[in-house]
Amino acid sequence: MVYHEKKLAVSGLMTGASPGQPPTGMQKPMKETAILLISCPDQKGLVAAIANFLHEHDANILHADQHQDAELELFLMRVEWEMADFGLPVPEFSHAFAPLAERFRMDWRLSLSSYRPRMAVFVSRYDHCLADLLYRHQSGELHCEIPIIISNHEDTQWLADAYGLPFQHIHVHKDSKAEAEKMQLALLHHHRVDFLVLARYMQVLSPEFIRHYPHRIINIHHSFLPAFNGAKPYHRAFERGVKLIGATSHYVTEVLDDGPIIEQDVTRVSHRYAIEDLIQKGADLEKVVLSRAVKWHIESRILLYANKTVVFD
Amino acid sequence: MVYHEKKLAVSGLMTGASPGQPPTGMQKPMKETAILLISCPDQKGLVAAIANFLHEHDANILHADQHQDAELELFLMRVEWEMADFGLPVPEFSHAFAPLAERFRMDWRLSLSSYRPRMAVFVSRYDHCLADLLYRHQSGELHCEIPIIISNHEDTQWLADAYGLPFQHIHVHKDSKAEAEKMQLALLHHHRVDFLVLARYMQVLSPEFIRHYPHRIINIHHSFLPAFNGAKPYHRAFERGVKLIGATSHYVTEVLDDGPIIEQDVTRVSHRYAIEDLIQKGADLEKVVLSRAVKWHIESRILLYANKTVVFD
Amino acid sequence: MVYHEKKLAVSGLMTGASPGQPPTGMQKPMKETAILLISCPDQKGLVAAIANFLHEHDANILHADQHQDAELELFLMRVEWEMADFGLPVPEFSHAFAPLAERFRMDWRLSLSSYRPRMAVFVSRYDHCLADLLYRHQSGELHCEIPIIISNHEDTQWLADAYGLPFQHIHVHKDSKAEAEKMQLALLHHHRVDFLVLARYMQVLSPEFIRHYPHRIINIHHSFLPAFNGAKPYHRAFERGVKLIGATSHYVTEVLDDGPIIEQDVTRVSHRYAIEDLIQKGADLEKVVLSRAVKWHIESRILLYANKTVVFD
Amino acid sequence: MVYHEKKLAVSGLMTGASPGQPPTGMQKPMKETAILLISCPDQKGLVAAIANFLHEHDANILHADQHQDAELELFLMRVEWEMADFGLPVPEFSHAFAPLAERFRMDWRLSLSSYRPRMAVFVSRYDHCLADLLYRHQSGELHCEIPIIISNHEDTQWLADAYGLPFQHIHVHKDSKAEAEKMQLALLHHHRVDFLVLARYMQVLSPEFIRHYPHRIINIHHSFLPAFNGAKPYHRAFERGVKLIGATSHYVTEVLDDGPIIEQDVTRVSHRYAIEDLIQKGADLEKVVLSRAVKWHIESRILLYANKTVVFD
Repeated sequence: MVYHEKKLAVSGLMTGASPGQPPTGMQKPMKETAILLISCPDQKGLVAAIANFLHEHDANILHADQHQDAELELFLMRVEWEMADFGLPVPEFSHAFAPLAERFRMDWRLSLSSYRPRMAVFVSRYDHCLADLLYRHQSGELHCEIPIIISNHEDTQWLADAYGLPFQHIHVHKDSKAEAEKMQLALLHHHRVDFLVLARYMQVLSPEFIRHYPHRIINIHHSFLPAFNGAKPYHRAFERGVKLIGATSHYVTEVLDDGPIIEQDVTRVSHRYAIEDLIQKGADLEKVVLSRAVKWHIESRILLYANKTVVFD
Repeated sequence: MVYHEKKLAVSGLMTGASPGQPPTGMQKPMKETAILLISCPDQKGLVAAIANFLHEHDANILHADQHQDAELELFLMRVEWEMADFGLPVPEFSHAFAPLAERFRMDWRLSLSSYRPRMAVFVSRYDHCLADLLYRHQSGELHCEIPIIISNHEDTQWLADAYGLPFQHIHVHKDSKAEAEKMQLALLHHHRVDFLVLARYMQVLSPEFIRHYPHRIINIHHSFLPAFNGAKPYHRAFERGVKLIGATSHYVTEVLDDGPIIEQDVTRVSHRYAIEDLIQKGADLEKVVLSRAVKWHIESRILLYANKTVVFD
Repeated sequence: MVYHEKKLAVSGLMTGASPGQPPTGMQKPMKETAILLISCPDQKGLVAAIANFLHEHDANILHADQHQDAELELFLMRVEWEMADFGLPVPEFSHAFAPLAERFRMDWRLSLSSYRPRMAVFVSRYDHCLADLLYRHQSGELHCEIPIIISNHEDTQWLADAYGLPFQHIHVHKDSKAEAEKMQLALLHHHRVDFLVLARYMQVLSPEFIRHYPHRIINIHHSFLPAFNGAKPYHRAFERGVKLIGATSHYVTEVLDDGPIIEQDVTRVSHRYAIEDLIQKGADLEKVVLSRAVKWHIESRILLYANKTVVFD
Repeated sequence: MVYHEKKLAVSGLMTGASPGQPPTGMQKPMKETAILLISCPDQKGLVAAIANFLHEHDANILHADQHQDAELELFLMRVEWEMADFGLPVPEFSHAFAPLAERFRMDWRLSLSSYRPRMAVFVSRYDHCLADLLYRHQSGELHCEIPIIISNHEDTQWLADAYGLPFQHIHVHKDSKAEAEKMQLALLHHHRVDFLVLARYMQVLSPEFIRHYPHRIINIHHSFLPAFNGAKPYHRAFERGVKLIGATSHYVTEVLDDGPIIEQDVTRVSHRYAIEDLIQKGADLEKVVLSRAVKWHIESRILLYANKTVVFD
């Protein structure tokens, strides 16, 4: 089972920028839309049933994408419609949709574009991914809240300050990791965080920690997985003499660097690149690969099955 | 109006390879499917109506893609289903679908995967695109017939021979172009050709000729259009000092190099590339960009509107 | 004549970060090196003569790149060596090298890696390129000073503040452009600026202005030049239905968007991209394409001839 | 020690196409050039010494590339000059260059552009790489001889016939592999083969076999190595849910898929790709990645060190 019905995001949480902070960017006023993600066994009549349900309630469909996995006989769908003239009040959706969902044994999730998911960012010393996420958030590209940035170092405090966002330093020592994670979890809970982004966070999270946020922790790994999983991928890429370096964003599971891949990209290198050059050129990849994953997650474009992702972009 | 109902492709035209020729490749036995392309004004209830129609006739949908153009309020769809248990005989489809099509003012077209469209190839002296198309045809990647290859030179006869395909040399002189086109058209008509591919054919076709095959002539232009349209694009790219060269496949319209773009790609070059190197590296681009366009055309993946293409790949 | 001997950059201009500002990043201590750029008619014995000159003065060569343009019979070279054990004091280089330079009719330029060129940034309202440059400057990737950021709007003041850099708002009205340029030039002169970057600066500079900084103004154009030069390239790309969008960094000359191209890149788009999506995806391209050009300029990797660039990367 | 002095390729081996065969393509008449590859410990005066040697003999240098590996203190160079007015007869080169080579402890190799290296192609059933190589050979892009094509199947005989090239079927059974290799080696020896290309040859060669052609066997592996080394890489890529698939050409060493990488490339895939689609899209990658490696090998552009390649392209 992939998707479970989630408490609906009805209440808007529009926290404005504090005075004296950077402007909130060029966010155009967006139409409010609803996004329904569905995953169920494939069978005839499925599309007709869903389309009829939406039509009965007067939905004006803006986007619809579907995918069938022939081997697993699985049906996956993302459909987005305007809320303006939708005939079904959001609190009643669950009840109204239930018969259909049961008949086709659907896992489903509804989200509203007006809701800005609450994202926590974990970071260590490398700050390029953090700087990139904060800029994209500020410019309106990432439609989310950032209630908290957590780091095991103090180096990136200045960036959080520059963007007027809360920063919490939690020291992590190998002997006190469990305690540190307890503090982190308390903080995440306090801030009602929906999902986490590890923006080059250099600590391995414990399975216990991960279980609190199943498929809701996004990591960026600085290689083209499954090549060079684990530590020091640029050094190993250099040694192996590869002609392209890569970056991979994925959901974190209990097996290191093995979770479902969300996005990957590569860039060309040559013998003229020293390790420092790989690291610098790779940083540009990491930024775009991570930010795409975060954006797709926020916009409910990702469906999961068989330790893989379907991205309806 | 983009699509007009087309005489249905009911009769299969399975011409096997002649004896003594290359094997017909690794064509896996394919399920027979039907593909419906639809283009109409966007309105509520459209998807439900189509899904219901297909469900009523027991269609097992394999793929469905749709696109809405918000500005033009246009709805575009491609849906593919298995013929095995489809309840409606093909010759009756048109009649049965008519009420729906009229209600929503649809342009539509049905094609069957079992039908292999009949493709003519025009070529001059450069033979890389021809060699590539013939290989892909032989290997089963391009699910089409090639009843005729036409050239204004004899240089590529050997390639046609190698693949056991008919070749016709029609000399084109600037004073006898109209006559040559008349001969070409007669040949195309005789071979009941469905669409044409200009595989680096170095002659400009007349508007009269083009009108016989509206949106059914695919050209490959050796630049990233609209840059360097017209003659000698590699030379002009070299002179301008661009850092990437490109190739563009497009449908031919009466305005040179201005038809709807089907596919484009680019590759990196540097100051170390002389013009001959650009030409050689560009040839690899041209091959893949043209073959993708041809494949999408054969598989009914391309919809046209506003001098643009939607490719449901 | 491309290169003219330039007053040598002997005095280091190491301005530290002000207190309370972001840290100056992870700048590794670099070996001091000298970089010699040479451009001259190609002839036998050239490489031997240069190599002998450097060897006589005990140069430890770290990198050497050369290029011959066969058609123009031109020789271009970049050679970099360590200063540590170089036997010729920098102030004497010019005198010692003169006989060789004259004999082979060289245009040449020497620069020292210890000198941080002084870069001014011009910006309007779009701030993504500015944000990217400031971050790269702060992180140590761009080895330059930024004595002044100039804008015709006040919107980006906060970014300059965040990075602790001087910002000057100079209003530009179509009737007062000449006056505005006079103020800009005075400011650039006052800050002893070496080169300018137009980071999506939405004003066309006058030929008079440009003549003050020949081949020392770098612009980013948001298309794959020469396609869509001039205004609104993303809108025109959308209308034309291209399958890739691009960005181009180039030196500014008096003809709009026609200067020597330094770097270009493209990214894939599809029918699913609205204009706003093109703009957003394009912004990521613009950032990397501009920053590469700036970095190569700073590191003396670019040679110019025939309105083209040779980049020794 | 990487390079050993090789018996010089003085005698041209210009075997023309047999009558009735495809034309030998658009081979422009090339200037005869000499290419010198050098690998030695880095030290001062090296470039000057080489440049002086060439200048003394009146060499007109066309291209020169060099690379220093800072960590290993290694110097690598490729220099190409015109033979027309070169003052040193080829048979005397070795003797004249010896003092320099000894002084700097060089591994070096001289090759002449007029010599067409003799390449054997090994193939099994997949014929796309073979078809691609034969086309490029015929068109003049690959400046080599193909004295023999060897296969453990008869499926590709028709392709060899189409291009008028000798084909030998040698059956390989797991119990008779040693014997088969003996026959293959005899054939290679008889045809005085310089290097081998495994064009999707589905048999693992024995270490004994490989030792006969050290760094002279080029393989294409259908993944982005080191990811998915070994069997069935596309299936494993599909299972892992990667977003890009790749291909890698490398020299064969005794450790499977572990030899020095010559070239790699990737292409984007999505959830819409079934395994057969990966295989088909991957085939296009394999062709270009293999053909680039072969071309660079033929043109003496590849230097080896530390199980890596330097490609002077």
